[in-house]
Amino acid sequence: MIIVMQASAKEHEVEHVVTSLKNAGLGVHLSEGEFRTIIGAIGDEKLVRALGLEALPFVEKVLPITQPFKLVSREFQAEDSIFQIGNCTIGGNQVILMAGPCAVESEEQLLAAAEGVKAAGAQILRGGAFKPRTSPYSFQGLEEEGLKLLARVREKTGLPIVTEVMDQYTVELVAEYADIIQVGTRNMQNFYMLRELGKLQKPILLKRGLSATIEEWLMAAEYIMAGGNHQVILCERGIRTFETYTRNTLDLSAVPVVKHLTHLPVIVDPSHGTGNWRFVPAMSRAAVAAGADGVMVEVHPQPEKALCDGAQSLTIEKFTALSKELAELAAVLGKYI
Amino acid sequence: MIIVMQASAKEHEVEHVVTSLKNAGLGVHLSEGEFRTIIGAIGDEKLVRALGLEALPFVEKVLPITQPFKLVSREFQAEDSIFQIGNCTIGGNQVILMAGPCAVESEEQLLAAAEGVKAAGAQILRGGAFKPRTSPYSFQGLEEEGLKLLARVREKTGLPIVTEVMDQYTVELVAEYADIIQVGTRNMQNFYMLRELGKLQKPILLKRGLSATIEEWLMAAEYIMAGGNHQVILCERGIRTFETYTRNTLDLSAVPVVKHLTHLPVIVDPSHGTGNWRFVPAMSRAAVAAGADGVMVEVHPQPEKALCDGAQSLTIEKFTALSKELAELAAVLGKYI
Amino acid sequence: MIIVMQASAKEHEVEHVVTSLKNAGLGVHLSEGEFRTIIGAIGDEKLVRALGLEALPFVEKVLPITQPFKLVSREFQAEDSIFQIGNCTIGGNQVILMAGPCAVESEEQLLAAAEGVKAAGAQILRGGAFKPRTSPYSFQGLEEEGLKLLARVREKTGLPIVTEVMDQYTVELVAEYADIIQVGTRNMQNFYMLRELGKLQKPILLKRGLSATIEEWLMAAEYIMAGGNHQVILCERGIRTFETYTRNTLDLSAVPVVKHLTHLPVIVDPSHGTGNWRFVPAMSRAAVAAGADGVMVEVHPQPEKALCDGAQSLTIEKFTALSKELAELAAVLGKYI
Amino acid sequence: MIIVMQASAKEHEVEHVVTSLKNAGLGVHLSEGEFRTIIGAIGDEKLVRALGLEALPFVEKVLPITQPFKLVSREFQAEDSIFQIGNCTIGGNQVILMAGPCAVESEEQLLAAAEGVKAAGAQILRGGAFKPRTSPYSFQGLEEEGLKLLARVREKTGLPIVTEVMDQYTVELVAEYADIIQVGTRNMQNFYMLRELGKLQKPILLKRGLSATIEEWLMAAEYIMAGGNHQVILCERGIRTFETYTRNTLDLSAVPVVKHLTHLPVIVDPSHGTGNWRFVPAMSRAAVAAGADGVMVEVHPQPEKALCDGAQSLTIEKFTALSKELAELAAVLGKYI
Repeated sequence: MIIVMQASAKEHEVEHVVTSLKNAGLGVHLSEGEFRTIIGAIGDEKLVRALGLEALPFVEKVLPITQPFKLVSREFQAEDSIFQIGNCTIGGNQVILMAGPCAVESEEQLLAAAEGVKAAGAQILRGGAFKPRTSPYSFQGLEEEGLKLLARVREKTGLPIVTEVMDQYTVELVAEYADIIQVGTRNMQNFYMLRELGKLQKPILLKRGLSATIEEWLMAAEYIMAGGNHQVILCERGIRTFETYTRNTLDLSAVPVVKHLTHLPVIVDPSHGTGNWRFVPAMSRAAVAAGADGVMVEVHPQPEKALCDGAQSLTIEKFTALSKELAELAAVLGKYI
Repeated sequence: MIIVMQASAKEHEVEHVVTSLKNAGLGVHLSEGEFRTIIGAIGDEKLVRALGLEALPFVEKVLPITQPFKLVSREFQAEDSIFQIGNCTIGGNQVILMAGPCAVESEEQLLAAAEGVKAAGAQILRGGAFKPRTSPYSFQGLEEEGLKLLARVREKTGLPIVTEVMDQYTVELVAEYADIIQVGTRNMQNFYMLRELGKLQKPILLKRGLSATIEEWLMAAEYIMAGGNHQVILCERGIRTFETYTRNTLDLSAVPVVKHLTHLPVIVDPSHGTGNWRFVPAMSRAAVAAGADGVMVEVHPQPEKALCDGAQSLTIEKFTALSKELAELAAVLGKYI
Repeated sequence: MIIVMQASAKEHEVEHVVTSLKNAGLGVHLSEGEFRTIIGAIGDEKLVRALGLEALPFVEKVLPITQPFKLVSREFQAEDSIFQIGNCTIGGNQVILMAGPCAVESEEQLLAAAEGVKAAGAQILRGGAFKPRTSPYSFQGLEEEGLKLLARVREKTGLPIVTEVMDQYTVELVAEYADIIQVGTRNMQNFYMLRELGKLQKPILLKRGLSATIEEWLMAAEYIMAGGNHQVILCERGIRTFETYTRNTLDLSAVPVVKHLTHLPVIVDPSHGTGNWRFVPAMSRAAVAAGADGVMVEVHPQPEKALCDGAQSLTIEKFTALSKELAELAAVLGKYI
Repeated sequence: MIIVMQASAKEHEVEHVVTSLKNAGLGVHLSEGEFRTIIGAIGDEKLVRALGLEALPFVEKVLPITQPFKLVSREFQAEDSIFQIGNCTIGGNQVILMAGPCAVESEEQLLAAAEGVKAAGAQILRGGAFKPRTSPYSFQGLEEEGLKLLARVREKTGLPIVTEVMDQYTVELVAEYADIIQVGTRNMQNFYMLRELGKLQKPILLKRGLSATIEEWLMAAEYIMAGGNHQVILCERGIRTFETYTRNTLDLSAVPVVKHLTHLPVIVDPSHGTGNWRFVPAMSRAAVAAGADGVMVEVHPQPEKALCDGAQSLTIEKFTALSKELAELAAVLGKYI
């Protein structure tokens, strides 16, 4: 940590900071510049944070030097994490396609979607059972009944399922059914829930919050890993910006950044990222080319009948064409689907 | 709703949309322009949304005309809502000061803060019992013990308390202790929790989400009101932007906008909005001048010893000076503290 | 245009708007809802804008239905625009690599860069002669001398050159030397300069403004085209968001959006988009996969000696490896370099 | 400056950085942590920047410690700058009202506006002569004829005028007429123009760029001051965010931040900041309460006839009421209008 003093800080105020650091067991390096004094604190940054030095009126700012996360970092583990899910692996050379409807609506709908995406090459089925919505007047999901339908369709098709959990109290319930548990964008910092997920030994798909920095996203992953569950899959799904033509701005640069900083796999959700089926194929290709370990795509047998997010769903026909393109792309990159 | 067709849409595709609207019981107004056909749907916008027309490849976009919220709107209730809390009222001519520490740490700390802010003129005590934090390695709050301390300090000082609830399962517990229940920025769209809060008859302080539009914020208020609880107090606390000098960007224009669109009271939290105690007095004054019904300010007897957010906390001395300024300001605006 | 009246608007106020529209030669469609009256204006939206109806206290808002641009739109020209530059074409099946240093520093530096990128497969040389900088204390470019060096290196290598113009008064000067004239992000809305560029018959590379919406960007292209110069190449280079790990957030979804809305070619600048050479290869691949007509990459023979933006420049070695990857990627997409 | 090495950096790579720093005449402090080496460079940060260390593959990042600006900083000048303009002063206890139409349209319009705002208490007249617009199809300003009208109206009313300059070539022309020269939001980083303005001895009103950080804004002020013109007035006018209900988000926290960092006066433009006349009075009051040295408000005798930005203009009547409110507010704050 670097403590930058106010230009007007007096000698005894500098001394106050130095003593606080030393009392906390930290090394101190003092540097007196032309305008201000800079204090370098040598040792564990957590100890410095606990001192609350920013609250002192003679301290201008406190600058961290190292990343606040550990277990997720490349320093902690240099080689890529690879997780086994059913017959496929994520984080290695396989490109994973997770596909299916936004919300589970009925067995017919889900089975039609599942069979369609499986035939097209998808390895994992997605579908939401809990769908709390912005408007109190909209469809809110089939809840446990939806989880049962997912399990039934998994049995029929052999596709592992990824589905979302909404709070810490339903973690156990969802874990009973899901092969991968999804943390939605609004729950990325639901720390009570992250703590429960940390106790499982099951892959967690952690979506980036709508306005979360990459650092905050990785801290959420750290939360889960600190609890003992090291199977975290990151999922970029668009951030909020001033652009209104797309629903969100898909931040694909997060893919190489995350690959640089961490050993965790990262997938991309271009359906929520763009909010418009027209742009999903292009952004899926871009995600794979950027190095993503997979994509998560909304597919509905009849998008215009969807109870949720039809505007961003591909038909099975369009998804089939996309899957073929992605397979060719993966091959050029030394990967496969 | 206005349905804008693709420029390339064919006659039978226009017909398809028109028929769908008519079958749903909606009136239709067709307007054929030089480049494209525009269809006006007359009637309840919810019915149009349910048709999922955006998913159709020949539809360019679907534009809403009216606001999606009702109960919160000025159309529904023209006069300002005013709520009674203890001896004070919010939403009328009184300017409310909610003050206290970020987190409840101990009885000594809380009592010192409470007595200090009360003497300075604050009418309501704030303090967090549940403090889930970005880092798994930080202090997480005293939980139920914290609620009990709040109640004890209320008894001693007579100050009503506002404190945060974290999920739907603790709504009942928090409601037992709190005079105003706070919904934090990360929970603004926790719809399960909003539903529970809608069943109470107690004021809810609804913080704006970190990247929530005003419309989304008002939809969250609508959720609570749709459940039957009409006592919603809005709280602007800063949005995320590219500016890094302040922790967030306090969007004070939200105050007059919300006053224009709704009948609900709105208060401002300059402590989280700026993240720096230096800027809290200026932004508190600005909030009151913009027409806010109050401010919520973090005050700590010893900010540099705070377990949470010390950098944005005022000392009791500084808060006392601020309170005096705000009282003078309120008087000029025809209000009082 | 749709004019939404205030809920409180009186009959004679609605009449006022209707009369204004009719006097301006527009058709009118009136729709009286439960809460408010909506007025549809049929005809040229420019005529509606000129009426200034938003200023009337009884008008809530005025909603445009059609895009404000024409010449750039797919409605105006359905097939893709393809421009010839030297031996290559942009906008068709060829993927264009523009590469070279941020700033022209010396003949040695420029020639080394040009020969390196040419050998690697780049078809166009980039290099800045005018480099006004954020800090008054930094290198500001070689100006006209830089243009001359670019011309000399073009002669030696055969590579066409793209270089930036800074204001309307130097348009003629730059046009004398450049094969493609670049409009920088800070000048996207320098309308005096756009007007001068509209009088040329030379390709213009129009960078998106740092916080420009796609609509504003296309309006800037419209400005140039309205003047008579139809050779506009769009260039996405990152927008400003709250994320700080990358210098900007490269908005790759702009590529398919722009392809959907317009017939113009679009290229991507991952160097400015990310600000970090580590992420340039991944984002270049992603750009091509998203459907971009090319990429613009900063390459410097010795990045750590660069007078400008060394941190985002590739070495010639790294660019050579990237170019090979992009060629393979292009082949899969039915394109070539 | 702090140079953070990659965790994988080898000893000779650390040595390479240390030697570079020493050769540049900088002091070096080495700190070897558990995971990575940190190098503190002691001396002028400009020298460190010139080394381009971020481009080295074994350097993770380079962190600046001090602000990059000097002349604008409180360290350079502790007491507030106060500038004399006509009979009024800006930067001290007087609150300045700059008011007038967005664009100069005719002598009648300008005179009516000027007489109206003068009677209401405004001390300075604003009006744009050069109005390059987003759409090539809109009114573009009266140009030099507009400047002449401004001068004529100044003669009649005695009000000093503030008007915008668009590029370096018209600086001289505008300086001939204007009492304060305005730099618009799109020109905040037009460094050629800033350089010319630095040669004058006339107050410059420097608007913040639409997506400029406070640091970039202050660097633009530094540019002007570095040229020798120390009369810079900052103007906050809203930044671009995801919120669409207001045209921009007025960042009022910039007022206390700028007051903390610099000695320059700062005024606020709530007309562009909100884009809606309804919200201008509330945000004007808030600006003054936040400590702004004045506000700049668009006033038009007939907003619905305005050729430019009528929706955000106040009538003379509304401005008169606002001015009275601001005078009362100023009095409470120990200021006057």
